[in-house]
Amino acid sequence: MTAAPTPPSRFTRVRRLPERGAYDRATIDAILDAAPLCHIGHVIDGRPVVIPTIHWRVGDTLYWHGSSASRMLEATPGAEVCLTATLLDAYVLARSGFNHSVNYRSVMCFGRPRALAEAAEKEAALEHFIEHLFPGRWPSLRPPTAQELKATAVLSMPIDEASAKLRTDGPHDPEADLAWPVWAGLLPVFTMRGAPMPDAHTAPGTEPPQGW
Amino acid sequence: MTAAPTPPSRFTRVRRLPERGAYDRATIDAILDAAPLCHIGHVIDGRPVVIPTIHWRVGDTLYWHGSSASRMLEATPGAEVCLTATLLDAYVLARSGFNHSVNYRSVMCFGRPRALAEAAEKEAALEHFIEHLFPGRWPSLRPPTAQELKATAVLSMPIDEASAKLRTDGPHDPEADLAWPVWAGLLPVFTMRGAPMPDAHTAPGTEPPQGW
Repeated sequence: MTAAPTPPSRFTRVRRLPERGAYDRATIDAILDAAPLCHIGHVIDGRPVVIPTIHWRVGDTLYWHGSSASRMLEATPGAEVCLTATLLDAYVLARSGFNHSVNYRSVMCFGRPRALAEAAEKEAALEHFIEHLFPGRWPSLRPPTAQELKATAVLSMPIDEASAKLRTDGPHDPEADLAWPVWAGLLPVFTMRGAPMPDAHTAPGTEPPQGW
Repeated sequence: MTAAPTPPSRFTRVRRLPERGAYDRATIDAILDAAPLCHIGHVIDGRPVVIPTIHWRVGDTLYWHGSSASRMLEATPGAEVCLTATLLDAYVLARSGFNHSVNYRSVMCFGRPRALAEAAEKEAALEHFIEHLFPGRWPSLRPPTAQELKATAVLSMPIDEASAKLRTDGPHDPEADLAWPVWAGLLPVFTMRGAPMPDAHTAPGTEPPQGW
C-alpha cells in the first residue's frame, strides 16, 4: 500500500502508481463516506503527528471535532493538515512474497482547516455527524447546551485537494509462477456490526438505531 | 478520538487525556499486532503527508515496506515519522450528542526509520511479514529473487517512543440525562474474515491459509 505514485499537478511531491490513482469526486466521496475513521497528519514543531479521528462529509466539506481544550485542535486551524482515510478490503495472496498485495480504498485530502466559530454552525455540523452515522437519531437526543457547544471544537476543510488510490484485483503473478503449488487468490476482510449492547438505564423495549 | 492528552515526558507537545493513556509495552505491542494497517505521517517540504501501509513488529522493532522506486520511502530514512495504528471497537451512544464517543485502541510511535541495506536482512524481515499474517506460508512460496529484494525497500524503526490510547467503556451520561428516553449503549464493530476466493490457477484441493 505504501507503493508510489504519479499524481496530478497539485501532488508533485507525492508520486502515486498511475494505475491506482483516481481523482474523480464520486470515488473520493464514496471512500470518505464509507471509512469509519481517518488519520490526520499535522506538523507540530517540525515533527509529524498523526491522530485518529472520526470525520464526516457534507457536500464539498469535511468535518471533524474534538475538545476545545485539545492543543491539537487549537494548533490546527490555519495550518496545513493531511487527512487520510483507508479501507482494507482483502489480502491478495500470490505465489511469491513479492507479488503479495492488498485490495484497499484510500483517500488523501490536503488543506487548512478552519474552526467553526458560531454555536449554530457547530450545532448544524454536529447534527450532520450524528445523522451520518445513525440516521434519525439527532432529534431523539437531549439537545446540546451552550456550554457543550462551547466545549466542542469543530473543524471544517473543503475537499479541493484530494485524491483516491485503490486496488481491486486478484494476484498478478508472472506466467512463470502460475504453476507454483500454493494457494493464491483473495482473502476478503470487512467490517461487521455486532449486536447492540444497551446500557443499564435504557428502558426495555427501546429500539437501537436502525440497521444495528 | 481526537480528544487530548497528558503524556509522558517525551510527549510534551501532544497532550492526551490522562485516563485514556497507556504506555506499557504489552498494551502497545498488542495493539500494533492486532491492527491490520497503520498510517505513517511524514513531513515533506514542510507539509504533512499521511500514507497508509501495512506494518509488522518483530520484538522491539516495527517494519514496513514498499517499492524502492517510491519517493516516499526514499525520503523517509533518517527523517522523523509518526506511525499511528487504530482499531475501532464500538460506537458509544449516549443520551446527548456531546456524550457520544467511540471505544477504540490506538498506538502512536515516533522515530527515524532506517532502510535495511542487506538482501539477507530484507528477506528475513519480509519472511516475518508474511508469517505474521499467514503462519506457515513463507516456506511454501516461490523464493524471492535478488532482483525482487533489490526492488523492495524495507524500513525499520525501534519502538522506543510510543504510547497507546484507548477507551473501553459504556456511555458516560450525567445523572440528569439518564431518564432521557433514547437508546444508549454500545454498538460494536469488528473486522471479519470473508470466505477465501482462490484464483483460476490455484489447483483444486489446495488449502487456503489456516484460519480463513
